[in-house]
Amino acid sequence: ELSAMAADMHPADLAHAMESLTDQEKRDVFQALDPKTATEVVVELSEYSRDQVLEGLHPNKLAEIVDELPSDEATDIIAELPTDQAREVLSRLDEEDSDEVRALLIYDEDSAGGIMQLELVSILESQTASEAIEAIRIKREEVEDIHNLFVLDNQSRVVGMLPLSKLILADPLTRIRDIMEPCPLFIQADEDQEAVAHKFRRYDVVSAPVVDAKGRLMGRITIDDVMEIMQDEAQEDIARMAGISGEDEMFLSRDSFKMSRMRLPWLLVNLGGGLVSGWLLWHFKMRLADALFLLAFIPVIMAMAGNVGVQSATIVVRGFAVGQINMDNIRAILFKEIRVALIMGVVCGLTAGTVAFFWHHNPYLGLVVGLAMTSAISAASILGTLAPALFKLLNVDPAISSGPVVATLNDIMGLLIYFGISTIFYTLLVQ
Amino acid sequence: ELSAMAADMHPADLAHAMESLTDQEKRDVFQALDPKTATEVVVELSEYSRDQVLEGLHPNKLAEIVDELPSDEATDIIAELPTDQAREVLSRLDEEDSDEVRALLIYDEDSAGGIMQLELVSILESQTASEAIEAIRIKREEVEDIHNLFVLDNQSRVVGMLPLSKLILADPLTRIRDIMEPCPLFIQADEDQEAVAHKFRRYDVVSAPVVDAKGRLMGRITIDDVMEIMQDEAQEDIARMAGISGEDEMFLSRDSFKMSRMRLPWLLVNLGGGLVSGWLLWHFKMRLADALFLLAFIPVIMAMAGNVGVQSATIVVRGFAVGQINMDNIRAILFKEIRVALIMGVVCGLTAGTVAFFWHHNPYLGLVVGLAMTSAISAASILGTLAPALFKLLNVDPAISSGPVVATLNDIMGLLIYFGISTIFYTLLVQ
Ligand SMILES: [Mg+2]
Ligand SMILES: [Mg+2]
Ligand SMILES: [Mg+2]
Ligand SMILES: [Mg+2]
Ligand SMILES: [Mg+2]
Ligand SMILES: [Mg+2]
Ligand SMILES: [Mg+2]
Ligand SMILES: [Mg+2]
Ligand SMILES: [Mg+2]
Ligand SMILES: [Mg+2]
Ligand SMILES: [Mg+2]
Ligand SMILES: [Mg+2]
Ligand SMILES: [Mg+2]
Repeated sequence: ELSAMAADMHPADLAHAMESLTDQEKRDVFQALDPKTATEVVVELSEYSRDQVLEGLHPNKLAEIVDELPSDEATDIIAELPTDQAREVLSRLDEEDSDEVRALLIYDEDSAGGIMQLELVSILESQTASEAIEAIRIKREEVEDIHNLFVLDNQSRVVGMLPLSKLILADPLTRIRDIMEPCPLFIQADEDQEAVAHKFRRYDVVSAPVVDAKGRLMGRITIDDVMEIMQDEAQEDIARMAGISGEDEMFLSRDSFKMSRMRLPWLLVNLGGGLVSGWLLWHFKMRLADALFLLAFIPVIMAMAGNVGVQSATIVVRGFAVGQINMDNIRAILFKEIRVALIMGVVCGLTAGTVAFFWHHNPYLGLVVGLAMTSAISAASILGTLAPALFKLLNVDPAISSGPVVATLNDIMGLLIYFGISTIFYTLLVQ
Repeated sequence: ELSAMAADMHPADLAHAMESLTDQEKRDVFQALDPKTATEVVVELSEYSRDQVLEGLHPNKLAEIVDELPSDEATDIIAELPTDQAREVLSRLDEEDSDEVRALLIYDEDSAGGIMQLELVSILESQTASEAIEAIRIKREEVEDIHNLFVLDNQSRVVGMLPLSKLILADPLTRIRDIMEPCPLFIQADEDQEAVAHKFRRYDVVSAPVVDAKGRLMGRITIDDVMEIMQDEAQEDIARMAGISGEDEMFLSRDSFKMSRMRLPWLLVNLGGGLVSGWLLWHFKMRLADALFLLAFIPVIMAMAGNVGVQSATIVVRGFAVGQINMDNIRAILFKEIRVALIMGVVCGLTAGTVAFFWHHNPYLGLVVGLAMTSAISAASILGTLAPALFKLLNVDPAISSGPVVATLNDIMGLLIYFGISTIFYTLLVQ
């Protein structure tokens, strides 16, 4: 009865409904699907659920599914399989399909090559509109979502795009070169997927050509995959901010141990940082014992330094991610961040200093708290701005700098600044 | 010479290049553009830069630009103008255009109505393929990006979609109803834009119909606008996590005072929270003075509670945002979060407790630190999970719960738990 219900549902809805089942239920439902529906469903599942339903599937059944998939999706599935299983499935595909998958497997999964598909419709600029329509007819079964044809010269270089809305109105004998439009973007196979998403957003296209160094057409990227990339990249940055590794499984896994493993590493970094702060407190304990009122401002200094650092890091990380900040303008951004930090530091420093003064009736305490707050905020914003740039230079994802690592460093730095300034004014404070 | 250079650039590239100019330079460049290029550039500018270049533009010039824009973009621009200027521009448009804009102005800018456009190509199911092609020919100037026709019954209800790739291969006399495809999604004008983006992602479409309560076609939404929404919504959630209000201007404004105003409110929340923590410390000072070793674990307990709370809140916020968590399964998510928190709490509690024991050679300190850590982590994760659900019930954007507010509450809660447990074991601790 389940497959009867499944037959009425859109495959994407079925995939979505499956996400909330247990891993075993997912496998049972998937087994019950006919091969065509299974193929449509598998591409819509999350990576996590896909692994679950494909695990232990007979290679013949797997090959049957992979055979129906476009080359990009087929490659994704083969890439996730254990080597033995992958080889077995590949050997069961027809030669053309398995060659295609092998060709695509060489690309990094986060690169343009990792998302491009080989199914597309291309036409020579010297051909006619009616020949273009014939080209579509030949490829109609094989190629999904044909919205544009890629126009090539006789060296296979992309020289234009032809939207179907133009082709459909053209006189059958018109030459393609007379009706084609310039191609606003070319993508290299080794480009990062995030850069690909920027280009799609900027040029408002629904598909784009991937070309080699000579400009020859290698494949195409379609907008449905770009939407997934945008979602994944945002999810990834957000997960890093929160100190969670691995983003796709963030909501899906019901396995508490797996979830803990994704979150514990960052918590332990945080734990180490917290212990270092505690060790600093311990070393400062004699001073604190004689001037216990200093204690009351430790949490606020640490909290503010942490938060300002996260703000600055987030601004730079997102600036990198959306392409508005780069290594050329990072200096200007740093100076702007310092100006902003000084403004915010003065406001918060005055507030905290005033509270300190009226609370403990000690003007020097007000001075120390105010000064420490302003300095800690400025220092945190400098560290927050520079950390993403540094990570980028080291080829580490800058997004981790808006997470627990930089926040912890800022806590420690804030504490050191507070203790440093307290030490300078110590005799005045306790007089 | 600038307009000569501009003429060679893609409008989107020109708009992008303008973003890094000063506000005055943006205005100068924009003034120098011919009306057609200005129209193409204005839609690609950020909201911030758009305000800058349109400010003080003569109503005639503004009307000339607006007249060329599709209805959704025209409405966005009119909506951002001061009332007087908006009225003046509307009066200069031809009646049809100004009626369209007035009709669209009633929708919330973050709703489906706020992003739909009235330009589209529709066809009756009883018509033929050749009539459909004629319909495209008639609308070709007015409608951009025609990839699908919307198929209507004789009550104007949407009954299907017709991709051009199917139309182009059809016999001219075929009835539309025989070649159309079912429409996988219908959008209501009052749906939130984030829900619209989910639907586009789920059904992999490039345009979708907006319908009224009776299913009659009102307008369409196109994928280029959906990509912008995805970007804006991710940016908004990230800004909230970092404690920054306002997302579009995050990287663009060079005005340090404006930037400070976007960041200070959350910092002041944080400042208040930090002072409350300090006040708690102050109240606990006699105990601390007699057992100074307790001091050394305050930062680590606060840091861990804060971080775990952010992790849990982020998981729930993103789960809401991508539609995987809803009010129905929030209970299950809560229990899962508690299980995960207990696992992580035990690991971190054992670690911190062991460090405390060996550092201060006090088994009771180890016990207190370990217990407090485990409890603080569990409490933080419960608060982190429930806060977004509560905000959602109160119709506040749940995204703020992964920001400074919940982090501050978790700091305070962690401190209270630590002091509570220390108090219970106090005589053992100092014996
Ligand atoms: Mg095949
Ligand atoms: Mg791939
Ligand atoms: Mg765009
Ligand atoms: Mg694809
Ligand atoms: Mg990435
Ligand atoms: Mg990234
Ligand atoms: Mg007009
Ligand atoms: Mg709008
Ligand atoms: Mg999709
Ligand atoms: Mg656009
Ligand atoms: Mg639009
Ligand atoms: Mg929103
Ligand atoms: Mg949102």
